[in-house]
This record gives sequence, C-alpha cells and structure tokens, in this order.
Amino acid sequence: MLVRSYKDVAAVPYAEGVEKRVAIGPKEGAPTFVMRIFDLGPGRSSPYHTHDWEHEVFVLSGEGVLLTEDTEIPLKADDVIYIAPYEKHGLKNTGQGTFRFICLVPLRGEDVP
Amino acid sequence: MLVRSYKDVAAVPYAEGVEKRVAIGPKEGAPTFVMRIFDLGPGRSSPYHTHDWEHEVFVLSGEGVLLTEDTEIPLKADDVIYIAPYEKHGLKNTGQGTFRFICLVPLRGEDVP
Repeated sequence: MLVRSYKDVAAVPYAEGVEKRVAIGPKEGAPTFVMRIFDLGPGRSSPYHTHDWEHEVFVLSGEGVLLTEDTEIPLKADDVIYIAPYEKHGLKNTGQGTFRFICLVPLRGEDVP
Repeated sequence: MLVRSYKDVAAVPYAEGVEKRVAIGPKEGAPTFVMRIFDLGPGRSSPYHTHDWEHEVFVLSGEGVLLTEDTEIPLKADDVIYIAPYEKHGLKNTGQGTFRFICLVPLRGEDVP
C-alpha cells in the first residue's frame, strides 16, 4: 500500500522541455501497468511515434493537441485519450503554461521513449 | 484513437451513493487495463474487500480516507494510491462534497465489485 501526492515524486528530464514522474511503477511493485505524469513546457511535444502497446491518458491541466496521422485534436483538462497499439501519436503543448497529463502504459511500455 | 471528456461518459450506479464511469475499457478496445472514474457521495464508501489484482488510483477531488487492515489514511486531490494484489482496502468519502477518483485495474478486475 502506498499513498503520496504525485507532486512528491521527483520529476526527471525526459526530452527537451519535458519532464516525467513515475507515480506508480515497477519500483512500487506494479505488476501490470505503470502510471506516469508528464509535464510539457510551452511549445514542447512528446515524441511522435508508434509502438505495439497502448496508451491511456488523462489530461490534468493546460492546453494541447493530440497529433495523429491525419489531424490535430485539441485537448483540455478532464479529457481522456485512448491510443491503440500501432497508432501514430504525439502530444504537444499549445498553451502558455505547462501541459500536464497522466499517461498509463503496460509494463513493457515503460522506459521506452 | 479516442478523445473525450470523462464527463461525457455516462455515470452508472455502482453501489448506494456511488457512481462509476468507464472512461477507457474493453468497449474502447483496451487490451491490458481499464480506466474508471468513481464518484462517492458524502459518507459513502467503495466495498471493503480484497482480490488478486492491483489498483492504481489518482484522487481528483474531495476528501476521503483509504481504509486498510490497520488504519485509515487521509486522501486529497493529487494523491496517488497503489494497492497491491491481496491487500484489504476500501475508499470512503469523509468530506461534504463528492469524493472523485480515477481507479485503474487490469482487464480481469473490471466489472467485479
């Protein structure tokens, strides 16, 4: 059993202008999936890529877009995103402040940028 | 690819004074784990129980406690909770308003109260 504010988890650099917190992961004993929290600075993006596992995302704050092969979908707080395996995707901050979201992956998707 | 506010997902009764939204689950194609959002009315609890799968929880709003075998741990917005398989647990609303949290489980934990 573990209870803590995600804000008490150290944020580590992930890409330029992007930080990541692993709130619940292998270190905490998570056997199936991992809860990470990402902060994107203004104008910053997560990698535009594809892989054979899914993402489940919950937007906490800020404004951004989901980049897909065809379009850009606007994102705001309280939005949830399901990205299926093999779907090309990236998330980009289009606002003035931090764009923060929870991004969950199965164990094998953790630590693979 | 699916983007929507979790608030646009219909909340369904789960227990007395408890409602549940399945934001991302089997219907959306989730292959590994399920994102549910629970609303507990004042004084209401989720079942105090145990099972062989884990929970990963993110508290969105309100005030509550995590009931464990030994103690009650206070909960507030931005807290994350990891409940390991077989750990006895329940969540209870101790505030005046709604206690709302995201609760993720592996697929086989969905639809088992």
